[in-house]
Amino acid sequence: MPNQPNQINQLRERFISELRATFSDQEPRGLYAPIDYILDLGGKRIRPVVALLAAQMFGDEDLKQSMPVALAVEVFHNFTLLHDDIMDDSPLRRGQQTVHEKWDINTGILSGDLMLIQAYQHLCEVSNKTALPALLCTFNRVATGVCEGQQYDVDFESRDDVTIAEYLMMIELKTAVLLGGALEMGALSAGASQADADHLYAFGRLTGLAFQLQDDLLDTFGDSASTGKLQGNDIIRNKKTFLFLKAMELLDEGGREELNRLFSESPEDPTPKVARVTEMMISVGIPEEVARLRDEFQAKAYAHLDAAGGSTEVKKVLRALAESLLQRIS
Amino acid sequence: MPNQPNQINQLRERFISELRATFSDQEPRGLYAPIDYILDLGGKRIRPVVALLAAQMFGDEDLKQSMPVALAVEVFHNFTLLHDDIMDDSPLRRGQQTVHEKWDINTGILSGDLMLIQAYQHLCEVSNKTALPALLCTFNRVATGVCEGQQYDVDFESRDDVTIAEYLMMIELKTAVLLGGALEMGALSAGASQADADHLYAFGRLTGLAFQLQDDLLDTFGDSASTGKLQGNDIIRNKKTFLFLKAMELLDEGGREELNRLFSESPEDPTPKVARVTEMMISVGIPEEVARLRDEFQAKAYAHLDAAGGSTEVKKVLRALAESLLQRIS
Repeated sequence: MPNQPNQINQLRERFISELRATFSDQEPRGLYAPIDYILDLGGKRIRPVVALLAAQMFGDEDLKQSMPVALAVEVFHNFTLLHDDIMDDSPLRRGQQTVHEKWDINTGILSGDLMLIQAYQHLCEVSNKTALPALLCTFNRVATGVCEGQQYDVDFESRDDVTIAEYLMMIELKTAVLLGGALEMGALSAGASQADADHLYAFGRLTGLAFQLQDDLLDTFGDSASTGKLQGNDIIRNKKTFLFLKAMELLDEGGREELNRLFSESPEDPTPKVARVTEMMISVGIPEEVARLRDEFQAKAYAHLDAAGGSTEVKKVLRALAESLLQRIS
Repeated sequence: MPNQPNQINQLRERFISELRATFSDQEPRGLYAPIDYILDLGGKRIRPVVALLAAQMFGDEDLKQSMPVALAVEVFHNFTLLHDDIMDDSPLRRGQQTVHEKWDINTGILSGDLMLIQAYQHLCEVSNKTALPALLCTFNRVATGVCEGQQYDVDFESRDDVTIAEYLMMIELKTAVLLGGALEMGALSAGASQADADHLYAFGRLTGLAFQLQDDLLDTFGDSASTGKLQGNDIIRNKKTFLFLKAMELLDEGGREELNRLFSESPEDPTPKVARVTEMMISVGIPEEVARLRDEFQAKAYAHLDAAGGSTEVKKVLRALAESLLQRIS
């Protein structure tokens, strides 16, 4: 069974039960209730699961060392979702009302702030105190990167000269760094060497980049029935993903002008626009370009996983998890 | 010279120069520029100064152990100001535009988030790594308390049954706990025992409570020329401070009804309202009640300072600083 779903599902269930055990009736409710609410909205729990797997690679069989790290990473991730939803004014998150919609913006800001503090609090609860300085250092680096990525994302929306290198840096900071950080911190909590933890960080970072490219690719060229997302949603919203930037690089001047014009329009019926953009992208080989870069990232990711020490059995599970992520199964 | 202004001023100057040394041209500017901006707006820098003094009490003469703590505390304090200004929609902070006014709300949220992360980052830079777990534990506890205090403050605005005990708990969490925490962490960074650090925490907490009562007292009964604030500002804004709550306790039923009515009105010319509320408060001895409780807090604060170990010379400076705070000189 290549996807090893049982072991992954078991870790996810174990994590969710530990996460729910942190929920409380603590006062003031206006501060604490929104935190339990967003943490209970669901999600794939990929980051905590890979943190636990990374720790198992280095002998933390019972997950005692790494559970605080897994909680820290998931609470931090949900803190970023909470504040991002305010900044984007998103009404829904996982099909439910966002916190600032269900309560209000001030509640969202303050509860999010406390979640960031709670993430650090979880991290401080690692039993392996000798690992604490390195864990904190990694966590600070990753958290800073995520904030920078969010700012670049905002900045890039109002710029029309964003390069492919800048776009890749942005998605790396905004999403890939936290996946890498979860793996690095999981390994460190179990006493792995920094060299091994660095390999796992690179594995996570490169897998995150591959996943983001795959996500962009599926948005335009995937089968919306299996992805569950509206086909061409990025095109409809004029989102300048890697696909757009690469097309701008490969198209001739006439093509560039047309694509730029299409990405400045928001027609009532987007179907012809989506069809035309898709056609233009296919004409310059965008699907193949994206798949090539995705596979390049993924191959490098696996090379780092192979280079890390630790249990080869658990490595197989991590690799299966990465495969399933890229196939959008998990 | 009872106020020892030279030693305190020197510490403040030293701190400000260390703080400015953290400013950078780092990208993205939209994220980093607002942080340097708010940190450079000024302020009395009381919290970092007492953190440094607490460390000097326990032998950190050159401030090498405690400077990261001082930076962490001041960056955290300014993070709370930044997010509070958004929540209160305040246009000005220390006479200058607030961050969300000068930039926008999203910038304020995200830059504030990064400041909270940076506070932890400063804390992690303490050279005395054995103190790190205790420092983080204190910092988390204090930061959580400050968020809870802010939420209670918001909650209390829409409640008309807030008790005096609840009000005191709220101001303790919102302001006193961070002053205590700055002292506790300063002491811990210099290797003080937890017992000594606890005494300094209590000294700071009680001084903070005394200061807040003094602040409320001066707002209504102080001389606006020397306080620099509008006389009766809390009354004009119908702010239910300790003075209001205590008056409601001491007034007869007719008085309570009148005071409640006055605190539901916002007349164009507030002068008669301020005069009448002040008169009512004087009639039931509010200034004396507030002064009595303030002095009780302060006496207890000094008892904890006396009970702590460490340099008696530095204790004198801390005591002088507390005196000057209560006189609003510093």
